[in-house]
Amino acid sequence: MPEPILDDISHRRFNPLRGSYVLVSPHRTKRPWQGQQESSNKIELPAYDESCYLCPGNKRAQGDVNPTYDSTFVFVNDYSAVREEQAEYEPPKQDGSLASRLLRAEATTGKCYVITFSPKHNLTLADMPAYDILPVIKTWTKIYTAHLDPHSPLAKSAKPTTLPPASLNGHPVPSPTQQYRYMQIFENKGSAMGCSNPHPHGQVWATTSLPEEPGIELVKLREYRREQGGCNLLEDYAKLESEKGERTVFENSSFWAGCPWWATWPFEIMVVAKKHKRALVDFDDLEREDLAETIAEVTRRYDNLFETSFPYSMGIHQAPLSGTAEEIEASHFHLHFYPPLLRSATVRKFLVGYEMMAEPQRDITPEQAATRLRDCGGPLYRTR
Amino acid sequence: MPEPILDDISHRRFNPLRGSYVLVSPHRTKRPWQGQQESSNKIELPAYDESCYLCPGNKRAQGDVNPTYDSTFVFVNDYSAVREEQAEYEPPKQDGSLASRLLRAEATTGKCYVITFSPKHNLTLADMPAYDILPVIKTWTKIYTAHLDPHSPLAKSAKPTTLPPASLNGHPVPSPTQQYRYMQIFENKGSAMGCSNPHPHGQVWATTSLPEEPGIELVKLREYRREQGGCNLLEDYAKLESEKGERTVFENSSFWAGCPWWATWPFEIMVVAKKHKRALVDFDDLEREDLAETIAEVTRRYDNLFETSFPYSMGIHQAPLSGTAEEIEASHFHLHFYPPLLRSATVRKFLVGYEMMAEPQRDITPEQAATRLRDCGGPLYRTR
Ligand SMILES: O=P(O)(O)O[C@H]1O[C@H](CO)[C@@H](O)[C@H](O)[C@H]1O
Ligand SMILES: O=P(O)(O)O[C@H]1O[C@H](CO)[C@@H](O)[C@H](O)[C@H]1O
Repeated sequence: MPEPILDDISHRRFNPLRGSYVLVSPHRTKRPWQGQQESSNKIELPAYDESCYLCPGNKRAQGDVNPTYDSTFVFVNDYSAVREEQAEYEPPKQDGSLASRLLRAEATTGKCYVITFSPKHNLTLADMPAYDILPVIKTWTKIYTAHLDPHSPLAKSAKPTTLPPASLNGHPVPSPTQQYRYMQIFENKGSAMGCSNPHPHGQVWATTSLPEEPGIELVKLREYRREQGGCNLLEDYAKLESEKGERTVFENSSFWAGCPWWATWPFEIMVVAKKHKRALVDFDDLEREDLAETIAEVTRRYDNLFETSFPYSMGIHQAPLSGTAEEIEASHFHLHFYPPLLRSATVRKFLVGYEMMAEPQRDITPEQAATRLRDCGGPLYRTR
Repeated sequence: MPEPILDDISHRRFNPLRGSYVLVSPHRTKRPWQGQQESSNKIELPAYDESCYLCPGNKRAQGDVNPTYDSTFVFVNDYSAVREEQAEYEPPKQDGSLASRLLRAEATTGKCYVITFSPKHNLTLADMPAYDILPVIKTWTKIYTAHLDPHSPLAKSAKPTTLPPASLNGHPVPSPTQQYRYMQIFENKGSAMGCSNPHPHGQVWATTSLPEEPGIELVKLREYRREQGGCNLLEDYAKLESEKGERTVFENSSFWAGCPWWATWPFEIMVVAKKHKRALVDFDDLEREDLAETIAEVTRRYDNLFETSFPYSMGIHQAPLSGTAEEIEASHFHLHFYPPLLRSATVRKFLVGYEMMAEPQRDITPEQAATRLRDCGGPLYRTR
């Protein structure tokens, strides 16, 4: 049981994975809400939409035609944020001038992919049984593998060779023209999270630089490992939470899913591998099935909570594509789900003024959120 | 002139005030937008609304009645996120257990105020001439002064004594029951930024803890000061930007306002004191007038940009209420404006999947944003 006193007093919780704090104000949910309402997602979508650039057989923005795929489908983003080729940029010399000290930039190249989760326009992860989510996990694994540094200790991992190679636009993924440092796999779901096409899909951005968030986590994971004699922060954390149970939403033999002690978003969930897994390539078939089941359980509960297609951003953090042996060993596979809704299908939490300027602030405790999510398992509300 | 090459290639810019990076993808604005549209703010509001809990003479949620004030009005937030009094919390002993290492919390107390900017329900800062913004700045200064640690070097600053003492609900602000560490002054404007009442108002949260963002900045400001022989990062930065001009939106003799090199939000603006000013109490009458003029110029340009009541979150960063002499000397007064709109009055930038999981990403360059904002000065579009 959580310390009951924390249900009533304002406090800050420490996030050891980022080395940062979040302010928790449990009594604040009593506040009435007169602000913006999200549009609820009651619109029924067709299984095929001829104006959708992700549906099988349709034409995309830049003229390419999608194959009539029957599971997942991968293509290079027509509006990539980073590109493989661009003009050279030579940063100004560090000559001690104010400009060289305060106006610093570095070029970044990379590659952006889009992955559809299903040929059906109206099937979200929450609608899909675990065995339909499995091909998505396999596709992530194949894309990750195709971009791994051949010298990485991970490249020697035998397991992914049991998977067929990744395909792109129906053809094998070409070898990258350069070695990327990190691959961010993520999904934006729902218009409240900036998603502009309801056809269920995720994205993959691979870059020559290690982005901020996985970079911050990697520093903390390495520190913990050094300070705790080789123990792994997230392995320890999953073990502790699985024993305590009060923040658990779902677990199976390979994964713990729950609202972390330090959650920022009201119904934030973290999915953590229970054993030390550095990246997607470390999983065997059973573990991939367990991951599919965990994703199905999390996304279905989200939809059930407010009986709506629940918006969120989801992302995978794992080992860099290329890095030192220590970085790769310290990495630990996990997923973050950041959903904005707070009170209902139409009232969200705004992380604005105080949160942007000072510190993230949350209203309900993670224990309260986990209890509610734990209790809304079972069949998807739309099919009951 | 900016290096023209940076207008076309993807790059990362370094933010020396936070020690973090932002990814810039200038070519990405070509992307079509089919996602969520914000409601535009075309509704004309009355000068007085009898259902508004901020209008003069009206009753608030908890039953208090507002005085018939004629300038600004300050009261304690009826739904404060932190409170002066609460049950004691004794954090668990650091006994080396997993729980003591990974489930860490600390109690936080504090005080939350609301400040109306004007008795008129329909006057935003953008509608107000500089001489009407001056009372807001004086009120901020008085609230800050009333909470200053009496032992702080800032408390000896003579200037604020020329201001009448702060009043609360029409009475003098009572001495705080405890010494707070930091005071965050901010404004959420517009429903897109979680503001639930259009009556122009800001907030003040004072806490016993130093929040994350000012804490991160303070570390960087102190480092710079030590490394650069006592120079001040933001004083150097304002000087450099004022000379370069390409990111300047507006400036007068006391303040530089522009889109910082490392801006995350499309039209983000930072207002920086040109001389070394640690906090509001360091300003004299002329500097307060210059600050009022700068806020008027920034908010009016924002509204003019897309001819809409432009949403944003704004916050003041300055010296902690209580801290070491070094912390207070290293502090430098500045304002951040974080506005979400990107393309028009109804299309915003979403900082979602990649931005949350990996790294903030922006589409237009800060130089492009500054040029557009510089060019839309003059009278407020609604009054032309
Ligand atoms: O205090 P308000 O205006 O009711 O609420 C708004 O600002 C707060 C401080 O930034 C946020 O915590 C809330 O999520 C937001 O809706
Ligand atoms: O790439 P999309 O889906 O068009 O765009 C969405 O996700 C991106 C990556 O998180 C964000 O940069 C965009 O602001 C958001 O609208």
